[in-house]
Formats: sequence, C-alpha cells, structure tokens
Amino acid sequence: MNEQELRNLVITIAKEAKKASFKLRNLSSEVKDAVLKKVAQKIREKKEELQKINAQDVEEARAQGQSKAFIDRLTLSDKVIESMAKGLEEIAALPDPVGEVIKMWKRPNGLLVGKMRIPLGVIAIIYESRPNVTIDAAGLCFKSGNSVILRGGKEALRSNLALAEIFRETLKEFNLPCEVIQIIPTPDRKAMEYLLELEEYVDLVIPRGGEGLIRFVTEKSRIPVIKHYKGVCHVYVDEEADLEMAKKIVINAKCQRPGVCNAMETLLVHEKIASTFLPQVAEEYKKYGVELRGCPETLKYVPWAKSATEEDWYAEYLDLILAVKVVKNLDEAIAHIAKYGSNHTEAIVTENYTKAMKFLKEVDASLVLVNASTRLNDGGELGLGAEIGISTTKIHAYGPMGLEELTTTKFIAFGNGQIRT
Amino acid sequence: MNEQELRNLVITIAKEAKKASFKLRNLSSEVKDAVLKKVAQKIREKKEELQKINAQDVEEARAQGQSKAFIDRLTLSDKVIESMAKGLEEIAALPDPVGEVIKMWKRPNGLLVGKMRIPLGVIAIIYESRPNVTIDAAGLCFKSGNSVILRGGKEALRSNLALAEIFRETLKEFNLPCEVIQIIPTPDRKAMEYLLELEEYVDLVIPRGGEGLIRFVTEKSRIPVIKHYKGVCHVYVDEEADLEMAKKIVINAKCQRPGVCNAMETLLVHEKIASTFLPQVAEEYKKYGVELRGCPETLKYVPWAKSATEEDWYAEYLDLILAVKVVKNLDEAIAHIAKYGSNHTEAIVTENYTKAMKFLKEVDASLVLVNASTRLNDGGELGLGAEIGISTTKIHAYGPMGLEELTTTKFIAFGNGQIRT
Repeated sequence: MNEQELRNLVITIAKEAKKASFKLRNLSSEVKDAVLKKVAQKIREKKEELQKINAQDVEEARAQGQSKAFIDRLTLSDKVIESMAKGLEEIAALPDPVGEVIKMWKRPNGLLVGKMRIPLGVIAIIYESRPNVTIDAAGLCFKSGNSVILRGGKEALRSNLALAEIFRETLKEFNLPCEVIQIIPTPDRKAMEYLLELEEYVDLVIPRGGEGLIRFVTEKSRIPVIKHYKGVCHVYVDEEADLEMAKKIVINAKCQRPGVCNAMETLLVHEKIASTFLPQVAEEYKKYGVELRGCPETLKYVPWAKSATEEDWYAEYLDLILAVKVVKNLDEAIAHIAKYGSNHTEAIVTENYTKAMKFLKEVDASLVLVNASTRLNDGGELGLGAEIGISTTKIHAYGPMGLEELTTTKFIAFGNGQIRT
Repeated sequence: MNEQELRNLVITIAKEAKKASFKLRNLSSEVKDAVLKKVAQKIREKKEELQKINAQDVEEARAQGQSKAFIDRLTLSDKVIESMAKGLEEIAALPDPVGEVIKMWKRPNGLLVGKMRIPLGVIAIIYESRPNVTIDAAGLCFKSGNSVILRGGKEALRSNLALAEIFRETLKEFNLPCEVIQIIPTPDRKAMEYLLELEEYVDLVIPRGGEGLIRFVTEKSRIPVIKHYKGVCHVYVDEEADLEMAKKIVINAKCQRPGVCNAMETLLVHEKIASTFLPQVAEEYKKYGVELRGCPETLKYVPWAKSATEEDWYAEYLDLILAVKVVKNLDEAIAHIAKYGSNHTEAIVTENYTKAMKFLKEVDASLVLVNASTRLNDGGELGLGAEIGISTTKIHAYGPMGLEELTTTKFIAFGNGQIRT
C-alpha cells in the first residue's frame, strides 16, 4: 500500500465509523446488552481458535526477543479470555448513560431546561500490547453509544483482528453496522498519523501506553486527546495518624500490585513520628522484598535503605521500590506532591480533621483520599463500574473514565412559545 | 524581538500564569467577588482614559480601511464600557463553583466517594476585534479560579492592554499575583503558535472568532481546544404546530438579532401547512426586510422569494437573509439538519408529543428546543449566568459555557482505613 492508499484507507474507516455512529446513538439498552452478552458467549466458545491465532503473535514477539513481561501482556491465557467475557457481561449489567437527563430546571419565563446525556460519536483508542483492551474498549464504547476505532500494538495485530471480528460478526447478526467497531489493519505508524488529522470524523482520542506514545499522539492530534498518564502517587502519614491504619494503607498501596499506575511510589512521613513509624513499616516492607530509597532523615531510622537521589522523587517505579521522605509538616508534604506528583492519586493518613480537609482541598490529583489506599483509584473500586482508564487530563474527565465519561451532555428545552426579548 | 526572544517571552507568560494559578485555586469567594466589584468600579471611573486609548486603535483601524462593522466591534462606547462593568458585577453575584461537591456516594466498604469542582488551571482565550472580551473572559476565568492568557486581535492591542492593566492593578491592591491575567503583548502571530505548544502550562484553549482562526488554532494546538463555531440553526414547523406560536418563534429566531450565532438561518416547513403558513410568515418577514431564499416548493407560495442554491443550506448568513425549505415530514427535517446543521441550536414547533420527543432525542446539537426560539441558546437565558461562549465541541462542554464549564471535578474519598483486596 502506498501513502495515498493508506491515507484513503484510514479516511474510509473514520467516515464509516461516523456514519455507523448515527445508528448506534439511539439504540435501545436492551439490544446493546444482548449484543454484549452474545459477544461474551462467543469469546468463550472460540477460546481455542483465539489462542491459536494469538500464539502466532506470541511466537513472532518471542522471535523478536521481546521481554517476558511483554509476552505476558500479549498472551491470551484462559484467565485473560474469561476476564474479557466477564468484563462484557459486567458492562451489559451497568446502567446505560445515554438519554439520561442529569438535571432539569425552570426559567422565570416557564422554559424547562435540562441536560441530556448523549454519546460523543467516534472514539479512537490507541494502545500497546494487551489485546484484551480491544474487547474492553469496544464493549465500553458500544454500550455508551460510540463507534470505536482501535489501533493496538503491531505485535498484537492478529489477535486484535480476531477479537474484533467476533464483535463485528455479532453486530451483523443483530442487523447492526459492524463499522461501529473497526481496527486499523496495519502496523504502519503513518496510519495513526493520518487518523489523528481527522477531526471531522473522530471526536476523541484516548492513548493508553508509555510516555513516548502519549507524547506522539498529543503532538500530532487535531482531535481532543484524553491522556492516561503515569502515576507518581504519594501517601502522607501525618504526625496525628492512626499508625496501625497507616501501616495497613502504605503496605497495601505499595505491595498489593506494584506494577500499576495507582500504586504508591513515594511515602511521606511527618518528622515527629518518623522514629517510631519508619522502623516498623520498613520491617514490613522487607518481608515483601521492597527496596527503600530514603532521604537522609529516613536513613537514620532505616539504615539498610538506599540513599534517594533527586530522580527518585520523580520516579514511577512500577516495581517493589519505594522512595521515602521525612517532611516537617503538612505544608511540606503538599508542596512535595505539587512539585513531584503526576496529578494521579494522593492520600493522607491522619486523625486531624482540619489537616484532612486541607489536604483534600489543596492537593490537585484525579483522586485525593483521606485514610485509604491509593490502590482504590479504579472505576470498579469507586463505583463507576468498568473503566477505560484513568485520565490525568483535566478537560472532560479527570480520574477513572467509565461509561458516563464516554458521553457528553446536550441542553434540551421544553417551551410553550418562549422567545428572546 | 527575534524569534527566540518571542518564544521565551511566551514561555515566561505561560509559566507565570501556571504559578499564579496555584494562588488562585483556593481563594475565597468573598475576595474574588470584592476584586471583581472593584474592577467594575475602576472601569467606570477610568472611562475617559480608556476611550482615549481605544481611539488610537480605532483611528489606526480606520486608516487601514476596516469596515464599519469592524470599527463598531472595536469601539469602547459608553454603552460597551457600562456593559463590561455590569458584567463583572453579575459574575460577582453568581455562585462560586470551586470546591462544590456535586455528588457523593458510599461504597460497600464504607468509603465515601465524591466529585469536587476544581479550576482547570490556565485558560488561553484567543479572540478577534472586540476588546470587551478581555474583561468578560478575565472576569469569568478569575471567578472560576483560573489564570487566563488573552490574545486578542492586533487592532485592539492598546485597548486590551489598558483594560487588563485595570484588572492587574486591582489584583495587586488585594495582594494577589497579577499574573493570573496576562495579555500576549505583541500582534505577531508566531506568539500564538508558541503559546499553543505549551501543554505543560496551559490547560485549555478557547478560540472565538472566524472559521480561519479556529482552524488555525485547532491545527497548531497541543493543548485541548474547545471551539465556539458557527451556528447554522434551524426551526422546523411541523404540520401539527400551533401556527400562531410558530410565527412568533420563527420571526424572533430570525429577526430579533440576526447577526449572532443562535439566530435561525434555515426555516423548515411541513408540506401540509406550507400553503397556509408560508404566505403569512413571508408577509411578516417582508416587514422586517428579510430576504427569503426558498426551495422550488417554497417559491410556489412565496413568489417574491429568491431561488435557494445548495450553498444556501450550508450558509450562516448572520444577516436578514433566510433559507426556506418545505419538507415531507419530520424524518426529512431531521435528516436535513443532520446534513447541513452545525450542532449549534435546533428547534421544533409542534403540538404532537411523540414528534417533539423524537426531535429532542435524535437531533444532535448543543441545544435542542421544543416550542421555543433558537435565540434562547445563551448562558443568561438558560440560567447559567454569564458565558464565555457557546461550545460546539462535544468534549468537556457542549453548549453555553458558564463558570461551571470552566472547572473540572476531582474525585475525593473519605475513608477509615480502606485498602484494595
């Protein structure tokens, strides 16, 4: 395919997605849920077939010398397949946001004004190696009434195509346009660039992946971008904290699943409790095999910790490594978070009401918690249901993006002859 | 100034805006309102001084041969100055959205989760010739806790600088950083390009002006853009309309103020009532001096109308010109609007409940009205208070953007030791 043909292909995909989105916009919840459940059923039925195709992607990735972590993310294990099917069933069980009137009020002239939820239209999802994102993202976009254009990693192309095909077949069985779910069928990066120019057809781009990918998309896109960026999350343990609670929270925030964006990367401890709290919690971390990198003050209480450098305060380890800093007071903790944080998830542990409220008000992050673990920043945990990711962009959605965040609202007005005077 | 110096200047402005925004973020409503009222007072006091400076801009624009309409928009008349001052007082009287918790719910583990309104951070407003936008936009951004960077038309630069200076002086008197309001102090278009690269410091760009400006901004910007685009607004008069009400609405929608984006540009009439409704309403339009451009069917009933071409259905006249089309039924009206509309404002006039609800549901526009004039798409009319414009972008805000739309929400959570299991 030459460049012109590739550009035409991408334009056709985007145009078809837009056209199909009109059919999806007002589709009943019953039909959408039936489709989702049918796709779940088929994914289970076609497990072996999917794994056979996925094995080709995996084999090629191995031959290219990809890391074990990469291969893990790429593999459609029994567990991953079941979780995709279950995920779709969960999305089917969630309330349909489309058509909901979230607010209504009356004007002095009698006009009833409201805001009604509507789909965005066409959403492009750009992601890396996990093929399960294909089904998760397609399910969420479909339920929220949006067409989706998926551009996964080139290593997962066969798997992504096979997964999308199951969804598309099902759509056809329901007499719905299969163009509501499309995959960019080529690994050529140029295709992504062409896609990002098509503001006329695509309403939103969500890049999920490493910093390089996200920067690339932001730079090239004429379409609004919602970023799902890194998480340099902190827990601040105040002098007035319940130290038993604090221990539970900081162990959970670091160790329960260190490889994800809402895991804690830096622990901030008030100087007045450092001498009692740090040695205790360090013992716990040792059991989990956590490497500690501390400020000079920390090293006094945890001699086996490594010395932290300036880069450690910026680091998203995604691993069993933790930066630890002793701070003078709440203000220093807030200032540290403002300087080094990534607006993702921040927590305070304290029994002091005024400090809790100050932290809540002054810290700028998609989720700010009092006396709870950063690991709770997740659509499921916060009660939104399935999520497409956690936005660190403030425009449109800040925090976990569930079905509601994939919609917008239009104003509606019921009148009886009102005019402007 | 060479290119590098210009770029550095713009970066400094953006950095200072960001830094100042932290001071503004949690400022009390009382102080914000006091500042706004003081600025209003000073604008009135310094009227003559402002008009003297504005006269230089006006004179230069005249010498350049700018149109009368352009000169009108540029001129700070007594009326415009009073309306700026009054606008600020109105903004002061509006409720402060910052810190409001719009929703709160409890999770099974006892965690209380909520969404709290917070400022976006730094907003850039790019506009054309009206210097009053400087004060209106600065007032709205200030009240909603955002720093603002203003880039107006080069013809209004002296006026914009003088207006902003009044605001900045007042900020200093209140010991607040004047960098929350800054003007790009050069007409060089390169400065705007540099600004649009600064996603690190600027959170949102709002371009207001002609199609060329908006396209330029969308293409160059790495920062999210909310467009305030053109309005090709329709009123559909159904066969089951109350024709007296319909007449009042379509006259108001076209004639009350034809030069604005929520004025009607195309009238759609059901074929069954065309023979009675069109001659009557055409007589009314004649009195207002409205030129009609009709489809062949329209010309049968209004022989003096001109013949409409394909371009007329796309046209935003912003003038006493109206395109008129007779349609077979509601479906044809909805299809016409989907094809030629601009997602701005659409209205139906009907007494039929099912048709009203169908129109409301299926038409995609920032405001969809039943039995009311398109001219009501306005922050004040809909009850939002002052507005920064009407967004036709679906991301973040769709429709009039008031104070709330200049904020985002962060998640907050009150726990008592909750962890992820």
